[in-house]
Amino acid sequence: MVDTLRATTTITVMLANGAEAVLPVATVDDARVAKARLAHALLVGERHNVPPPDFDGGNSPLEYSGDRVRGRKIVMTTTNGTQAVVRCQGAKAMALAALVNAAAATRWLQQAGCDGVIVMAGSEGRLALEDWLGAGAIVAGLTDWTWSDGARAAYWAWNQAKARLGEALLEATHGALLNAQGLGEDVRYAARVDLVETIGVRDGGGWFRNS
Amino acid sequence: MVDTLRATTTITVMLANGAEAVLPVATVDDARVAKARLAHALLVGERHNVPPPDFDGGNSPLEYSGDRVRGRKIVMTTTNGTQAVVRCQGAKAMALAALVNAAAATRWLQQAGCDGVIVMAGSEGRLALEDWLGAGAIVAGLTDWTWSDGARAAYWAWNQAKARLGEALLEATHGALLNAQGLGEDVRYAARVDLVETIGVRDGGGWFRNS
Repeated sequence: MVDTLRATTTITVMLANGAEAVLPVATVDDARVAKARLAHALLVGERHNVPPPDFDGGNSPLEYSGDRVRGRKIVMTTTNGTQAVVRCQGAKAMALAALVNAAAATRWLQQAGCDGVIVMAGSEGRLALEDWLGAGAIVAGLTDWTWSDGARAAYWAWNQAKARLGEALLEATHGALLNAQGLGEDVRYAARVDLVETIGVRDGGGWFRNS
Repeated sequence: MVDTLRATTTITVMLANGAEAVLPVATVDDARVAKARLAHALLVGERHNVPPPDFDGGNSPLEYSGDRVRGRKIVMTTTNGTQAVVRCQGAKAMALAALVNAAAATRWLQQAGCDGVIVMAGSEGRLALEDWLGAGAIVAGLTDWTWSDGARAAYWAWNQAKARLGEALLEATHGALLNAQGLGEDVRYAARVDLVETIGVRDGGGWFRNS
């Protein structure tokens, strides 16, 4: 599942920086309940791109240095990304991808030994360009797979934008909104392709851990 | 609405060749009922790319020369395209577009004086590459409009494929299927960008006429 701006980028960075596991939860209330059972966990996320007042942090990849997250469990709820995770519950296996770990996502799909579906979180039910590009970056590495029409279209978008991803993400509807809210650095960070090897893979309890 | 393979391509060609009007109908039975009320109309269309046995013709743009269609009304039902027409009934105005009349569709949108939504028929609920490219060809002419993320992604696909549209349409899932069924000429015809100036626009009764 791809939610480039910003949930899967941020979760990937958390795990790359040593977080033990991340639990995406659909609602703010459910996140509070999950956190209440876990003494040392962080409760993080956003609504309208801003963390609820009682949360320990927001949805920016820049907030979660190793000092902050190493060895910790993190409960997270975001507007689109965590909803998409919940909707994918029926999948045989599931991992979280973004531009920052596109090559790791490609490798994970290649070793999965089954058909792959790249789910894009989108934005309030509509296509989000940054997720489309994340999907295209993953598809680009699956040269020996049979591509659906959607995979091919995403690959073409990736080919058009890969030389100027930072600009492309700032042109995207959600990237422009984040930039206007003072979060342009998050957008530029999310455009850094293959920054890490980390990939969060779902365990039996719905937590995502670095595989 | 775009259904490049083949409904909107075929309807555009029918109107370019002098058909009076075309009525897209969702089901084979409804099409028979509509035709029964119209003595000189043609009843055409397909299921699984083949016309039902009592129909006057199929869904190939190559079937409908001026001799066949001039001055006639045509009742048509196809697997995906006519369903998409029915679903667009709530639109303020509606026209039928394909690669063969992309520039005409762009012009029609520009003079419509309102926001535009490009609806892709797709194939059994999934993205169809040939419709995505048709949408991209239309968007490419709307340089002074604000584009949604989807419009931008379609435009990028168009930019990648426009130099080799015939091949791209044969690589698309539905294009490959049509080619395997001996209908490759239809696919190549549908890839001929801006072949005609014609555009079918919906009238108050649901018929499409050359505007």
